[in-house]
Amino acid sequence: MSGATISTDVVIIGAGPTGLFAAFQCSMLKINCLLVDALDEIGGQCVALYPEKPIYDIPACPAIEGAQLIEKLAEQIEPFAIEKLLGRRVESLSGQSGAFHLVTSKGDTIEAKAVIIAAGAGAFGPNRPPLDGLTDYETSGAVRYSVRRKADFEGKSLVIAGGGDSAIDWALSLSHVAKKIYLVHRRDKFRAAPESLHQLEEAIARGVVEKITPYQLSGLQGDGATLSGVEVATLAGEKRVLEAEHLLAFFGLATDLGPIAQWGIDQTRSTIPVVPSTCQTSMPGVFAIGDIASYPGKLKLILQGFSEAAMASHAIYAIVNPNQALHFEYSTSKGVPGAA
Amino acid sequence: MSGATISTDVVIIGAGPTGLFAAFQCSMLKINCLLVDALDEIGGQCVALYPEKPIYDIPACPAIEGAQLIEKLAEQIEPFAIEKLLGRRVESLSGQSGAFHLVTSKGDTIEAKAVIIAAGAGAFGPNRPPLDGLTDYETSGAVRYSVRRKADFEGKSLVIAGGGDSAIDWALSLSHVAKKIYLVHRRDKFRAAPESLHQLEEAIARGVVEKITPYQLSGLQGDGATLSGVEVATLAGEKRVLEAEHLLAFFGLATDLGPIAQWGIDQTRSTIPVVPSTCQTSMPGVFAIGDIASYPGKLKLILQGFSEAAMASHAIYAIVNPNQALHFEYSTSKGVPGAA
Repeated sequence: MSGATISTDVVIIGAGPTGLFAAFQCSMLKINCLLVDALDEIGGQCVALYPEKPIYDIPACPAIEGAQLIEKLAEQIEPFAIEKLLGRRVESLSGQSGAFHLVTSKGDTIEAKAVIIAAGAGAFGPNRPPLDGLTDYETSGAVRYSVRRKADFEGKSLVIAGGGDSAIDWALSLSHVAKKIYLVHRRDKFRAAPESLHQLEEAIARGVVEKITPYQLSGLQGDGATLSGVEVATLAGEKRVLEAEHLLAFFGLATDLGPIAQWGIDQTRSTIPVVPSTCQTSMPGVFAIGDIASYPGKLKLILQGFSEAAMASHAIYAIVNPNQALHFEYSTSKGVPGAA
Repeated sequence: MSGATISTDVVIIGAGPTGLFAAFQCSMLKINCLLVDALDEIGGQCVALYPEKPIYDIPACPAIEGAQLIEKLAEQIEPFAIEKLLGRRVESLSGQSGAFHLVTSKGDTIEAKAVIIAAGAGAFGPNRPPLDGLTDYETSGAVRYSVRRKADFEGKSLVIAGGGDSAIDWALSLSHVAKKIYLVHRRDKFRAAPESLHQLEEAIARGVVEKITPYQLSGLQGDGATLSGVEVATLAGEKRVLEAEHLLAFFGLATDLGPIAQWGIDQTRSTIPVVPSTCQTSMPGVFAIGDIASYPGKLKLILQGFSEAAMASHAIYAIVNPNQALHFEYSTSKGVPGAA
């Protein structure tokens, strides 16, 4: 294997929204950084899974789609010309704070003083329902786990399966495009933002969305390419067939920390515990931010990932500049002594 | 005194960026809220002190001016029609978590289950230099403490005094408008973002900005309305006169918690210590976010205020809905168990 040999201050693993903003924060502190991502493009799940899904809770962005959010973040770091290694994973990490050594799956070797893990859910893929003939309908595009183009569903009848935020948000978003949406969930209660649940009731009142609960997916009907119906069943075995041309299943992501799990950093299930005020992991010099990081009271919001990016970057300043105090205040902090 | 009597879930004291975003987060959780601010318009310092100052570190907003940021945040909460009481302070707080009673300076009485203090630096005003005849030049506009319209300084010679972020940022911003800028500071070292200091060196190389250090302001020359020069002196008493039509002094804000200081909430100097994961103060049911809140590792960034707004709102959900678990996840958290 051959690859680049790169020396930098900080390696940021993951080029999703949180990793991109960490690159911005580092750059503002004049810390050099390098972005590495397993995907071939920046943006993580925002681009790979929901480029057209509107996101409502980014401050000062009343409604922004996944792909637009990434475009804005890319624009924000553009002046810094940050180097990116895409389409490769970081396979190994050795060394210690101030002198880490990393190797990627394409054979690049990287020397860095600190590491930020912003790997989201790690390597991610959809959880797939156990249905006969599923693979054929996945291949034809009749069964999907994400929406890349809403226009694909114009005038169609759909089954959306799942009880979380993704299922609800897509049911709402596609209710303005699709002819009919059956929302199938194994329980009567959905896990989503109260405001979204409120909007769901409105979509049901409009007649576009119909709740099918408590039902689970039990079969697919069709010719192996075109879907004609989706079979659902209660726990007691009562069956129904829903006429639909597409099944959109949102059962969450099968997540996998991948090689990161082998680096000797403390883990809790699929997350990495960190110190809240710095986002440092159990390994000095290695920081974790965004969905992959956990601490008491953690909210899994993109917004919190941004805030964690700022904290990690400031903590790293001391590692990169060991003999230099960071005198750094924003204008809003003037007159308030003791700002970090 | 007469005023409104209002019953709500949460009173948010302060309608700056952090308070506005807290109102958004509450609304997304279907928590009713009310915004109260001493100023006559929303926006806090962003609007009152630096409406035209570009802010660079809001995620996904590569460069946004103070007033624009507030416009965007206002747009984000617009669908929720949140009630606002402007031009009045909250004078008193009594009661306890779940049943607070507040009275404003205009005699409004408010019943609320929880309180969010997002009061920034409290009641704020500029720190003024001790110079003879200062008030006259303030009245004529020759001496100022904020920049509301950059165009006012087109082709002018200015003295900018101060060593922090505000002084540097305005020197940089006005270096594209003014004829000459003398940057006066009592020390040789400035406290500002490393990237800003780097840009300052470039502005100095261009010849527009000249550093005058270590000097302090010692006098004003002119006819009492029009300024002709600003006197500066070293600690040793060496004097110089800088030809300038304006003095812009950025010595920070004189801050004042005002009545809040009397409510029995623990304070540290001019900030209110909070529990990091919830932003709750020493008084149960009362939360503090943004510049007024302090905890170990706190960074005074607008960004952190947004994140704190999210944490406080989620913590308040349990107070407003005591018998209801909040099932709430964003799509980015699917498949990751244990989200709050």
